[in-house]
Amino acid sequence: MRQSHLFTKTRKEAPQGEVAKNAQLLVRAGFVHKEMAGVYAYLPLGLRVLNKIIGIIREEIEAIGGQELLLTTLQDPEIWKKTGRWSDEVTDVWFKTHLHSGDLYHQGSELGLANTHEEALTNLMREYILSYKDLPTYVYQFQTKFRNELRAKSGIMRSREFIMKDLYSFSANEASFKEFYEKCASAYMSIFARIGLGSHTYRTFASGGSFAKFSDEFQTLCDAGEDTIYFSKEKKIALNKEVYTDEVLKDLGLTKEELTEAKAIEVGNIFSLGTRYSEPLGLLYKDEAGAERPVFMGSYGIGPGRLMGTVVELYGDQKGIVWPKSIAPFQVHLVEISSESEEVSKEAAELYRTLTEAGVEVLWDDRNLRAGEKFADSDLIGIPLRVIVSEKTIAAGVFECIERGSGKVSSMTASELIESLSHV
Amino acid sequence: MRQSHLFTKTRKEAPQGEVAKNAQLLVRAGFVHKEMAGVYAYLPLGLRVLNKIIGIIREEIEAIGGQELLLTTLQDPEIWKKTGRWSDEVTDVWFKTHLHSGDLYHQGSELGLANTHEEALTNLMREYILSYKDLPTYVYQFQTKFRNELRAKSGIMRSREFIMKDLYSFSANEASFKEFYEKCASAYMSIFARIGLGSHTYRTFASGGSFAKFSDEFQTLCDAGEDTIYFSKEKKIALNKEVYTDEVLKDLGLTKEELTEAKAIEVGNIFSLGTRYSEPLGLLYKDEAGAERPVFMGSYGIGPGRLMGTVVELYGDQKGIVWPKSIAPFQVHLVEISSESEEVSKEAAELYRTLTEAGVEVLWDDRNLRAGEKFADSDLIGIPLRVIVSEKTIAAGVFECIERGSGKVSSMTASELIESLSHV
Repeated sequence: MRQSHLFTKTRKEAPQGEVAKNAQLLVRAGFVHKEMAGVYAYLPLGLRVLNKIIGIIREEIEAIGGQELLLTTLQDPEIWKKTGRWSDEVTDVWFKTHLHSGDLYHQGSELGLANTHEEALTNLMREYILSYKDLPTYVYQFQTKFRNELRAKSGIMRSREFIMKDLYSFSANEASFKEFYEKCASAYMSIFARIGLGSHTYRTFASGGSFAKFSDEFQTLCDAGEDTIYFSKEKKIALNKEVYTDEVLKDLGLTKEELTEAKAIEVGNIFSLGTRYSEPLGLLYKDEAGAERPVFMGSYGIGPGRLMGTVVELYGDQKGIVWPKSIAPFQVHLVEISSESEEVSKEAAELYRTLTEAGVEVLWDDRNLRAGEKFADSDLIGIPLRVIVSEKTIAAGVFECIERGSGKVSSMTASELIESLSHV
Repeated sequence: MRQSHLFTKTRKEAPQGEVAKNAQLLVRAGFVHKEMAGVYAYLPLGLRVLNKIIGIIREEIEAIGGQELLLTTLQDPEIWKKTGRWSDEVTDVWFKTHLHSGDLYHQGSELGLANTHEEALTNLMREYILSYKDLPTYVYQFQTKFRNELRAKSGIMRSREFIMKDLYSFSANEASFKEFYEKCASAYMSIFARIGLGSHTYRTFASGGSFAKFSDEFQTLCDAGEDTIYFSKEKKIALNKEVYTDEVLKDLGLTKEELTEAKAIEVGNIFSLGTRYSEPLGLLYKDEAGAERPVFMGSYGIGPGRLMGTVVELYGDQKGIVWPKSIAPFQVHLVEISSESEEVSKEAAELYRTLTEAGVEVLWDDRNLRAGEKFADSDLIGIPLRVIVSEKTIAAGVFECIERGSGKVSSMTASELIESLSHV
């Protein structure tokens, strides 16, 4: 894409009152727009990153048998009353609204905006799960959740409106559930690895869901995290502070000395729901003997926006964002210096065409600006590889390439460039 | 995909009180789930269709220079007050909610759920449109809209929560706006043609937006439509009933005799916004002479869910849905008869592998059911081509193929099948 066509521009300043590093950088670089506290719109660059993260998650969840659907935001209170979660005292993050009732606006029946989808999906599955032959089955979606957070100060990592990948498993019994649970844990680690968070992310013992002593969180070590964990790099094990007791340590065969305290961001969680929802909502199946039993459920969440924010927090530096190759909005930032030289523009256009035809995603800075301004923008936007076309590089017969992360400089011809990018 | 793995099942009966043919068939075939009146979830088959429609729209809108972003559902009342559209008397379809305010739930400030996005986007663009050099620019999204419709009886064609492709143009003046407006009208006709609605859809004169005598609607002839239009097949011209006056007919050089009255579904609309939003919200740009001028805007909407519903209304028959190839959930419905024969299962598995490897999307009915039940399900689901594998077809050495729409039967080998599908 030509940068002169991109409608967003970089900004020198973050919005007033924005304290989170991720939102500061993402707003300044033109990836997101702050609509209000805790509510962010995704601009073209940000949407590209978000969609790449969603694509990686989708691939991994499809690979373990997930079937994608799309539930609704508007929620019927009657279903939530059955599980006891309609009350604002139980679920303090509800946004609620009213259904139109003729002339009397706001006099109709109350509706909820989904903050999660256990109730809706459990109720829906009563249509389709009747017998043990219908089990196990796994259903997921990417859907906007609404949570009326009292404080929303972590940028796009904790927002009032955010996209969530939520997966639910439906099994005949606990053993079948556990088998999938472990498969999903592995899929989650693959997702974090592919997004560039692998080496910083720990599967972490946390306080349990229903029917289980622990749930599992996936925590990425990061000073901006809201959670505190204790981890051992050697043993690749971690505990959330909430379960860090002598008894638990003893059970797990760990000592305080081998664990290090750190701040961490919860980038995913998986937990047993048991029959917490299937019983009150009547999601029952007939077993081999014809007896009716409640379905054993599990729940598995990842927030693509939170992953995006975590990457910015973890890798962003003084100059701006540093995207891993797998989720960068473009693979190459082609910067022409200066745009007043017709020869340089021609050479840049030629390289843009060559790279694009080879399937490389290129943001081409064809704007008529000083080199210093272009480089500062490029650093802020954080595309992994910057390729410079200038009178100097034309004279040398090779392009100057700079890796955004390491700062490593190299000189390459167009075909060497394509060759190097094909190893991504 | 193996049909035995698909968690949805077909149903004999539509939900009680569901009067729209599109929703009746889509629910029965397992494409959508009715959450409540006017609120539908998309199940795996339905989501596949929806995503194909979205993909076609995205391609055509990218081709005319649209840049995709994703705005928010939660809306700040202050922006809407500036254009006078916050009031429930002006905009009677608002869903409104409240922002959490400490212990006092429902005492915080009021928020809206977006029923459209002119205000939010116009306000956002003030960051990025400063000079005539930033114009024109075109921005679009696929975003869920919430409209508190008093009556929602048209199935997925008019729902309270629905995905909308909304595109907005920002131009320096009316002439520049009009140029894009016509480009977009052509893109819309391409979209409808690719989705299979081309020959039934008319660009239709309707009552104007701001700064224009008419707006343009795209109306698909269909008895289930809520609109009445007058059209001429010969002249490829149509008028919405609301502008069907002697004066307008005279202006357009038409007579009543050459126009036919018909019911139609509004599948898209495009209209001039002029400076209706840019003036009150202060979206101004500096022209070549340095003078500040309001941006001239246009708005362009298509509802992918409504298109899906329209296709079902238009082509569905007594037996079920008939999908055009371009948006079908799968291209081939591979039906094995019977699953008790090991040879048949092996042959079906082999054909499934061959087709899948050739890039054909196949739903493979590997369930252990009677042929009659399988055929009835296949008719209801509406995949364009049914391919039967049975002892009879194995003996014949060719597969039996039946087109869902025309009922045309043919016999093909695997390679003939792949060859015929590559012409889609």
